[in-house]
This record gives sequence, structure tokens and C-alpha cells, in this order.
Amino acid sequence: MRYELYYWPGIQGRGEFVRLALEDASADYVDVARLSDMDGFGVPAVMKFLQSPEVKQLPFAPPFLKAGDVLVGQTANILQFIAPQLGLVPQDEPSRLWAHQLQLTVADFIKEAHDTHHPIASSLYYEEQKPEALRRTKDFLATRLDKYFGYFEKVLDRNGGHAVAGTHSYVDLSLFQIVAGMRYAFPKAMAQREAKYPRLVKNHAEVQKRPRLAQYLASARRIAFNEKGLFRKYPELDAG
Amino acid sequence: MRYELYYWPGIQGRGEFVRLALEDASADYVDVARLSDMDGFGVPAVMKFLQSPEVKQLPFAPPFLKAGDVLVGQTANILQFIAPQLGLVPQDEPSRLWAHQLQLTVADFIKEAHDTHHPIASSLYYEEQKPEALRRTKDFLATRLDKYFGYFEKVLDRNGGHAVAGTHSYVDLSLFQIVAGMRYAFPKAMAQREAKYPRLVKNHAEVQKRPRLAQYLASARRIAFNEKGLFRKYPELDAG
Repeated sequence: MRYELYYWPGIQGRGEFVRLALEDASADYVDVARLSDMDGFGVPAVMKFLQSPEVKQLPFAPPFLKAGDVLVGQTANILQFIAPQLGLVPQDEPSRLWAHQLQLTVADFIKEAHDTHHPIASSLYYEEQKPEALRRTKDFLATRLDKYFGYFEKVLDRNGGHAVAGTHSYVDLSLFQIVAGMRYAFPKAMAQREAKYPRLVKNHAEVQKRPRLAQYLASARRIAFNEKGLFRKYPELDAG
Repeated sequence: MRYELYYWPGIQGRGEFVRLALEDASADYVDVARLSDMDGFGVPAVMKFLQSPEVKQLPFAPPFLKAGDVLVGQTANILQFIAPQLGLVPQDEPSRLWAHQLQLTVADFIKEAHDTHHPIASSLYYEEQKPEALRRTKDFLATRLDKYFGYFEKVLDRNGGHAVAGTHSYVDLSLFQIVAGMRYAFPKAMAQREAKYPRLVKNHAEVQKRPRLAQYLASARRIAFNEKGLFRKYPELDAG
């Protein structure tokens, strides 16, 4: 079955966590909004779902994914749906719940990482909330980053280097992505802290070397980090 | 099976979404932290899990729930785990994914509602971030509240008055709770807006009248809203 991923075309954003799983599993999928409007794809195809009065199970926002008749929204929910089909999580319920629990904690983390540059309103530009962004980021780097990364480090430690013990899973891919994103957005702060998270760093390196992932990351399908996504490089926020 | 809910004893908070489901289904459960330290319960029992080096599937934060050998964390994940057992969601996968998708959107909403009074840092008091809170709340009431409530209103409209078409589910309980919370925190703003959300208001009224829920809400088990929880009444933020 061909999966249809609906997400904004110009950013990694939340959709990237889904793309990483699809790419790592070499799944058959289309990244709908990145194809041409002329062929019925593009952003208009995303908007059609969000604006149609016919859609009973309306998504709140991208990403959402279509698989045959099933339409699934919310990043972590998409992942828990596709992962058993892609071999990216064990089939038993306790393992799936555990993986999903971690993914929801990743979701909490990226919301906080995003809010460093948008502490007041996502409807305003960063430039309109800069003093607040400086203050929020200071706290984020001083208290939140270590709370989350320290937690994930412990989890990897207690589960043999993987998020789900004994196996590679989509959560490992997501942990790779948050390390990559933090390195992009906060290179100084990360350089000072990485020694505290050897297992997270090792997981990042290992995921990056997985053959299909390496191919994806080197391809044009991997959108570069930029200042419209979740992780943004604003040097004045990167206190080190 | 007796469920053990681990959550802070003094607030409704995120744990309340789980309590509502357990109470509505008349489930056999203990609210661990609200029982006595002397009997091995209380907050020390919560901390034991968070601090034990033995717990492989470590929760990031309360709430988490124990059911026999299974330990599940993250509010929405707990709900998707217990709901099929409690008859609070249909058994088929598409219905469960849809309910969970909505619950994750509820989670996004309550995070934003919380951040109105804590836009800079959860480690600081509200009083230490008041100007920022005023600014964030202004945007929240002007743009975010309607985005979420307008969305949930549409969902109820398209699914016959319930979140999951044709049946009462745990999501209806959660939608009751966010209306209750918003009325507590922002009575003026809500009074001005409720006419736009007749189905959300109706769902609130109907849930409140469910016999077991009515009994729960009138009992001492229902902690009152207060200024340590997600929804806080700070009149200066309630612009109407």
C-alpha cells in the first residue's frame, strides 16, 4: 500500500519524524505537498482535507497520513500506526505503548524547543518576541534541555542503547532527529553538553549510518534545517 | 484488575483526564499519591518510580498508570490503553486511532492553556513572568482558543454530537474537562464566546449529568480547580 503523507513542503518540522520512519523502512509513499499542484498534489491537496466540510475525521493540522481508507493525524499517532507495518516497533502491546510513550515525550520536547523562539505567539514573527525568546531560551538551556536529554540518556542506558530494548525502532530515529535539530539550532550549547549524553550521541551516529537513512539524508528529499521549522538557528539565543 | 494511578495529589492537572475515565467507567482504581505515606502510598510512592534505577521503562513525569505488569506513561497513552478495557472507545483500530488523535489535540490545547500563565518557564512563579503572561494570554484568547474550540465544535458537529461518531467515549469526557477548565480560568472570555460552540457546551452538560460522573464531581475525590493546576484563575488575564 502506498502511504500519502500530508505535510508542509518547505520544512522538516513535525513531518520529518514520519519521513524518517518511511525512509528508514523504504516504504512506498508520496510526500503529497512536495509534488506539483498541476497534478492535483501540492499544498492545495493538503488544504483540501483541512477545509472540506465532508471530512468527518478532520485533522487539526498537518502532518496527517492517508493509508487506503484510513486517515490518521498527529505525528506520534501516525508513527504508532505505521511502525508495526514497517517493522519499526515490536508487535506486542506493551512494547508499542512504551515506544509511543517515548514518542509523546519527544513531542513535548520539540514543542518546548519550538517555543524558545516563539514564547508568546506562533502568529507573531520571532522578531516580535525577541526579549521573551531570550528569556525563555535561557531557562530552556538551563533546565529543560537537561531534563529531557538526561531522561532519554537514562532510557537508552537501561535498554541496551536502544529506546525499545533489543531492537531498532522509530523512537531511535526520533532521538536522532532531536539531536540533529539541537545541534543545528544551538551548536554552542550542545558542544558544551554532549559529553553528558554519550548514548544519545552514539544513537545519532548509528542512525545516521543506516544505509537507507544515509541515502535519504544525502538526497534532495531531506529538506535542510531552516528558520521556518521547529529548530531554528538564531545565534543570539545560543548562549553556550 | 485494580489500576494504580500515579499523579500529584493536590491538583486536577493532566491526571484528571485519566480520573474522569476511571470514574465514568466505575473502574477499580487507587489514586496512589492521595493515600497515606504511612501505608506505602502518597507522593513518596510516585517518587519511588521516578527515581528508582531499576525501572527500565521509566516515565518522564506523572501521570503514569500501573495495570498488573504494565506501566504506562503520558496521559493520552494511558487513556488509549485503558479505554478499550473500560468500554470508553470502540474496539476497532480506526476508531481508536481517531479518538487518540483527538486526545493528542486536547493535550496540545492544555499545554497552550497552561503556558498562558507560564510562557517563560515552568520553573518560575507566575508572578515572575506576568508581563509575558499578559501578552501570551491576549494572543491565546484572540487566536488559539477559537482555533481549538472551533475545531472541536466541527468534529462534534460532523460526528453526531460525540467525538467518536455514534458512541460516548473518553474524548467526550476530555472535552467536558477543557470546557470546565476554561470556564474556571477565563469566565469572562468564555461567557463572550460560548454561543459559538453549542455542541461543546451541550457535551459538557451531558457529561456532567452522567450518573457516575455526577457522583464523582460532587464527591471529595474531585479536587477543586486551583492556582497550582493547568487552568488557573488570574482575573487580570481574563480579558473577556
